[in-house]
Amino acid sequence: MLIDRLSIIGVGLIGGSLARALRKQNACGHITGYGRSSEHLQEAVDLGVIDDFSLSMDSAVKVADLIVLATPLKTTEPLLKAMRPYLADHAVITDVGSAKGSVVEAAHATLDDFLPRFVPGHPIAGKEKSGVSASTADLFQSHRVILTPLPETSVSAINKVRQMWELCGAEVVQLGVKQHDEILAATSHLPHMLAYALVDCLAGMRERDEIFRFAAGGFADFTRIASSDPQMWHDICIANRAELLRSVEAFGKYLENIRFAIEKDDSETLLDIFSRAKETRDRFTQTRDHRNDSTE
Amino acid sequence: MLIDRLSIIGVGLIGGSLARALRKQNACGHITGYGRSSEHLQEAVDLGVIDDFSLSMDSAVKVADLIVLATPLKTTEPLLKAMRPYLADHAVITDVGSAKGSVVEAAHATLDDFLPRFVPGHPIAGKEKSGVSASTADLFQSHRVILTPLPETSVSAINKVRQMWELCGAEVVQLGVKQHDEILAATSHLPHMLAYALVDCLAGMRERDEIFRFAAGGFADFTRIASSDPQMWHDICIANRAELLRSVEAFGKYLENIRFAIEKDDSETLLDIFSRAKETRDRFTQTRDHRNDSTE
Repeated sequence: MLIDRLSIIGVGLIGGSLARALRKQNACGHITGYGRSSEHLQEAVDLGVIDDFSLSMDSAVKVADLIVLATPLKTTEPLLKAMRPYLADHAVITDVGSAKGSVVEAAHATLDDFLPRFVPGHPIAGKEKSGVSASTADLFQSHRVILTPLPETSVSAINKVRQMWELCGAEVVQLGVKQHDEILAATSHLPHMLAYALVDCLAGMRERDEIFRFAAGGFADFTRIASSDPQMWHDICIANRAELLRSVEAFGKYLENIRFAIEKDDSETLLDIFSRAKETRDRFTQTRDHRNDSTE
Repeated sequence: MLIDRLSIIGVGLIGGSLARALRKQNACGHITGYGRSSEHLQEAVDLGVIDDFSLSMDSAVKVADLIVLATPLKTTEPLLKAMRPYLADHAVITDVGSAKGSVVEAAHATLDDFLPRFVPGHPIAGKEKSGVSASTADLFQSHRVILTPLPETSVSAINKVRQMWELCGAEVVQLGVKQHDEILAATSHLPHMLAYALVDCLAGMRERDEIFRFAAGGFADFTRIASSDPQMWHDICIANRAELLRSVEAFGKYLENIRFAIEKDDSETLLDIFSRAKETRDRFTQTRDHRNDSTE
């Protein structure tokens, strides 16, 4: 069995789905949940997602050989700090945060000689719905999980986390921390900001009722991600600020190119941009094949 | 039978789907196609979409009682001008353009005493794929069609076009020309510009290969509409310039609000915007029910 005792810190959509997937694979002896709300944790027990739970960090982690931190990004540092005194010598810790620079900083600030057993991770999977009730055993199936190990991280710790995700059906890849944050800012964080800004903009228009009445499928697809969890996205914005700001600024220039071309009746530029974008998007769709990644 | 002889000017995705839907309902005696390419028109005949075709406007429209203009927006004025001399007294003309202000201008410039029999229309339906080979009989099923009649348009002409679309399974609504263009700029034209700008922006980044490799489902949904026909979207930009520029500018302010809040670590503003957008989007999804509108 890959994991004797698994501890999930934060049993929501991601933590719950991970527990379900590992249980389905018989990869875990025992799963303990940790959180702030006994009501939510009891729901997870009732759903069969975890075996039991604890509201105290001490008993939640002291016998665990694998600990998965699956809480909003801003809680990473306080929770790592809180668990540090109780970690067993052989324990491995990983997380699921959508930005990695701030997580690595938090690990450096709190884990000291435990750093070699910490493996920063990010499953590229999610839904607009959150909470353990939305969790499913197949959430990570055919999705990518990015690990961004530190220079200090031990190979055995990386391998344990890699095997865990592979058992969930995920394809595991490694990237540098900065590279991860730059790529995710462009492909995930920036699109979320655009979707939020678009919905907010339309809601502020004079004809707002008619606008939402006539909004078509393109709009529905485009703004699906604006239904994501506001707190989680707040945390991502703060955690990945530098890279995200760079992406938003870059996007602003490309949008300005289009605006200017429309203003100037510049057919050549418009056709160039639209044709190039179509070609790129069509190529993306082809290479993506039957992969089935979702948000985050 | 609603239509004795239907003439479809431009037998592509929209024109072809309309012909298929009306044929399925036995609503047409005979369907003639008009276009520039005998090869494309022969394909439409071979697919059973139209009965025959003509490359000359004279024979394409002279016996038609209903003429549907389904070509790119920039061809509206020259085609209306070309057909005017051959129109039968009882003929009704409609179009399917995604912007209506420029179409109404073209009608005023060309149709003179035939204006009462022209019904500007816009089916809110489409696909990223274009051409008659992508046409289907159910493209308009449960979709909205917006008619923007002129003060001069006769009630009998409006009713004929309304019945045509209702036979295709569409819900027909009437809006003012300016109101249509304002609403469509916000809900369709602006989102397309954002999708084009995003794909173009990402393609210009240093890590472009990795970026497209790791792009997730949120990105795929968000940019689906960037695979739409570049010429069609060029024409829409030019035709609906004023309203589209207003939308792009309004959006820019909302995106700047988010950018500024990220820069200033302004958690309250970020949470406000994201929560408000989520609430609006969730409400939109609910009211949308089982409607199934697609792009445009």
